[in-house]
Amino acid sequence: MTDDDQELGITESKSHNTGEWYAEVVRKAGLADYGPEGMSGFIVTRPRAYAVWERLQSFLDAKFKSTGVQNAYFPLFIPESYLEREKEIVEGFDPEVAWVSEAGTKELEERLAVRPTSESIITPYISGWVRSHRDLPLRVNQWCSVVRWEATETKPFFRTKEFLWQEGHTAHATHEDAWEETLTRLDQYESVYEDLLALPVLRGQKPDHDKFPGAHTTTTVEALMPDGKSVQGATSHHLGQSFAEAFDITYADEDEEERLAHTTSWGLSWRALGALIMTHSDEQGLVLPPTVAPEQVVIVPIWQEETKDEVLSYAEDIAEELSDAGVRVELDDRDERNPGFKFNDHELHGVPLRIEIGPHEVADGELTLVHRPDGESVVADREGIVGTVEEHLETIYAKLYAAAEETLDGAVREADDRASILGTLGQHGGYVTAPWCGEEACEEPIKEAMAAEIVMVPFEDDDPLVDEGHDETCAICEEPATRTAYFAKTY
Amino acid sequence: MTDDDQELGITESKSHNTGEWYAEVVRKAGLADYGPEGMSGFIVTRPRAYAVWERLQSFLDAKFKSTGVQNAYFPLFIPESYLEREKEIVEGFDPEVAWVSEAGTKELEERLAVRPTSESIITPYISGWVRSHRDLPLRVNQWCSVVRWEATETKPFFRTKEFLWQEGHTAHATHEDAWEETLTRLDQYESVYEDLLALPVLRGQKPDHDKFPGAHTTTTVEALMPDGKSVQGATSHHLGQSFAEAFDITYADEDEEERLAHTTSWGLSWRALGALIMTHSDEQGLVLPPTVAPEQVVIVPIWQEETKDEVLSYAEDIAEELSDAGVRVELDDRDERNPGFKFNDHELHGVPLRIEIGPHEVADGELTLVHRPDGESVVADREGIVGTVEEHLETIYAKLYAAAEETLDGAVREADDRASILGTLGQHGGYVTAPWCGEEACEEPIKEAMAAEIVMVPFEDDDPLVDEGHDETCAICEEPATRTAYFAKTY
Repeated sequence: MTDDDQELGITESKSHNTGEWYAEVVRKAGLADYGPEGMSGFIVTRPRAYAVWERLQSFLDAKFKSTGVQNAYFPLFIPESYLEREKEIVEGFDPEVAWVSEAGTKELEERLAVRPTSESIITPYISGWVRSHRDLPLRVNQWCSVVRWEATETKPFFRTKEFLWQEGHTAHATHEDAWEETLTRLDQYESVYEDLLALPVLRGQKPDHDKFPGAHTTTTVEALMPDGKSVQGATSHHLGQSFAEAFDITYADEDEEERLAHTTSWGLSWRALGALIMTHSDEQGLVLPPTVAPEQVVIVPIWQEETKDEVLSYAEDIAEELSDAGVRVELDDRDERNPGFKFNDHELHGVPLRIEIGPHEVADGELTLVHRPDGESVVADREGIVGTVEEHLETIYAKLYAAAEETLDGAVREADDRASILGTLGQHGGYVTAPWCGEEACEEPIKEAMAAEIVMVPFEDDDPLVDEGHDETCAICEEPATRTAYFAKTY
Repeated sequence: MTDDDQELGITESKSHNTGEWYAEVVRKAGLADYGPEGMSGFIVTRPRAYAVWERLQSFLDAKFKSTGVQNAYFPLFIPESYLEREKEIVEGFDPEVAWVSEAGTKELEERLAVRPTSESIITPYISGWVRSHRDLPLRVNQWCSVVRWEATETKPFFRTKEFLWQEGHTAHATHEDAWEETLTRLDQYESVYEDLLALPVLRGQKPDHDKFPGAHTTTTVEALMPDGKSVQGATSHHLGQSFAEAFDITYADEDEEERLAHTTSWGLSWRALGALIMTHSDEQGLVLPPTVAPEQVVIVPIWQEETKDEVLSYAEDIAEELSDAGVRVELDDRDERNPGFKFNDHELHGVPLRIEIGPHEVADGELTLVHRPDGESVVADREGIVGTVEEHLETIYAKLYAAAEETLDGAVREADDRASILGTLGQHGGYVTAPWCGEEACEEPIKEAMAAEIVMVPFEDDDPLVDEGHDETCAICEEPATRTAYFAKTY
């Protein structure tokens, strides 16, 4: 084994040391490096990961634009007095804020916060832009980075002091319009996970005590990680009228009456990349669905000196045909590497489909297709290769989704008392559902015993306890239950 | 005249008060707002301007990607010690830096700079990624914002404390490879101006005393503004080996010898939007070339109560046909506004082509096309409308380019002594070319007399003084001239 081969291997176990295994995949697959000394909690996002983020951006941005959202860009800094103004309604992000107090060799008169999120600077501008009901709905979104100085340990993409995200901010005439907006964005986030990242998610709302500060309702999509923890995949907040009131967003209705608007905000961060990497990857390295993989197909020609020309020319034709059809294909014709090395290399880097071509394949007008997730290998005809490859890419997506779905389905368990909630979470992780009275106090005994909480409550229409009017008691306090709670460990 | 009509009018004169006129266009066309109180020098980029930036991004990003560039994302902050390390070679940006010294309620051990540009954080990572000649060339780019705490007055897009840009950073095996890279990027910047923004530019290099700190050569594209000043449109730097030496970028060549790399960096900022807005717009408001306009065509139906249905249905059909063909078209069917208001409104907002449709047009199977830049009006057949509109959009682009080119061509004047350089600049603005010895001292007398400097020196191949071996003396000191200098006033 050469140095290079060692470099290609993942040494940690996904099931036993999920955290260390994840960090190793991130580093060895060239996704991210840690920040400079003195900047723990920051990462450098390398081209391979950034390319996945760009595909996610373009998928989600197209959905936004087709549903009335316009992009804009607001300043990186927020004056301290603006954040203070927000405190009329909420506690805010103060303890996590990075402050600029010197600039251009001078002390600033007022400290500037590096944005932890932009409600407090965007909402006042929206207030200036909205005058009449004809200006509503008003929707702006920005793709940017935000900074939150969290004390907890860094995990690339999952928890970093600076992260890339989008934040959308909207104003509406009525409570119902704002609610519809909130759900439209939640649907789009669900689609990012399910239709692009091959990750099934649960959808619902946060318990009242865990809403975005000042929000009327916080909705969420939750994804299950392989270590049994739940990740908040994205949130969409119905902010009610509290921000409109604090920042004075009023409009003249059709009768020229002045009314207070209703607002929403919603965001998805690069944590989605973390969930993607952690769910599908394995002990050979990164696994990516073809939808977001920088290269969907790699062709590895296998030759001896005397067969090199014919093999390479056959491989080049196939690469060109696939590329012309819009498939992202790479031909790995490196002379200095043997096929075995190349197989490992592309497995590590998560190329979904490998095509192997040797002299036998050339002679028979065939080629061998190998699926990244499970090594399934199929011999196919050279003819009709574009259609064949497209079918296999779809199959690979479906395999990844099905595996994640099976895991998720098996990870939702019922419990109806405190002991069984704790016992089930301790033994299996995943989600434990239990009837709940709605009081934060009844989450406490679970939270105290282990790092678990109520991550979600299904919407009323999806909650049999509400929808079918079941008569149950809270698993903790035995008062009447109002909703089904999903308990889980979290990052 | 109602309030609304006043709101639509531009009151300042482009030729007499260019600065005030520009500020008014930016505000009234909904391009940008000023930052919050306490944050002078910052702007809020509104959707209309951001949409133009997105088109520019997508045009330039595609060029980058087709020439080997990969996007990445590096941290927003740079430790002070990293900036210090850069000082081994250069003075750097220190006086313009915004510093974070408190975060998460604690004083930081080391101050963090909000990036003014990212050489000092990107280069050390490139150093870690480059080992062998096979890793070269290595090219990364990021789209982000940077902060420079400039003391001078703000001008939206031209001069702001935070601005959006892209910064590319590359490493190469040889000096020649790095030079080729530098020129490839300069060509792409030139293409942004000439093929996308309808702005002819001059290309060349900065005088040695005005290079990027530490660079071997700084190349530039310069655009002429209507007030006769020159704007640096984008720069591409051949950094030589100084950054590679300071940050230790070495590689093993084919004989396993360790060699020092050669690096480049290159950037284009939203100043390009400023140049675009200022050049083409007029006293009716914004003018945009169809290439970047959010709406390329607006259809204004003109009806009376009894003709409304037929006019509207005819207009809707045309809108649908254009939209299906990929034209960005808006049908302005607002009931509460009259056609005159709509004309002014869309002129203010820079929609390149207006289609007017009244009952006569419907009866005759025709429509009227009006060009934004000059009001030229043409009656055309309804049949073949897609092709007709596409031709007119091309004509509009060509008109804008030709007007800017004529201005530029007429604004380059020759001079051969100090008095005539100053006299010509004072009277006409624009560019004054003069033979120059290459010494900074000979720029001083011009700089002292007015805010003018040598903005550019043509490349050797483009400089008749070099190329044809003319024997001339410096316009200032009368020593032998080595190059032709372009003097101009600047922002």
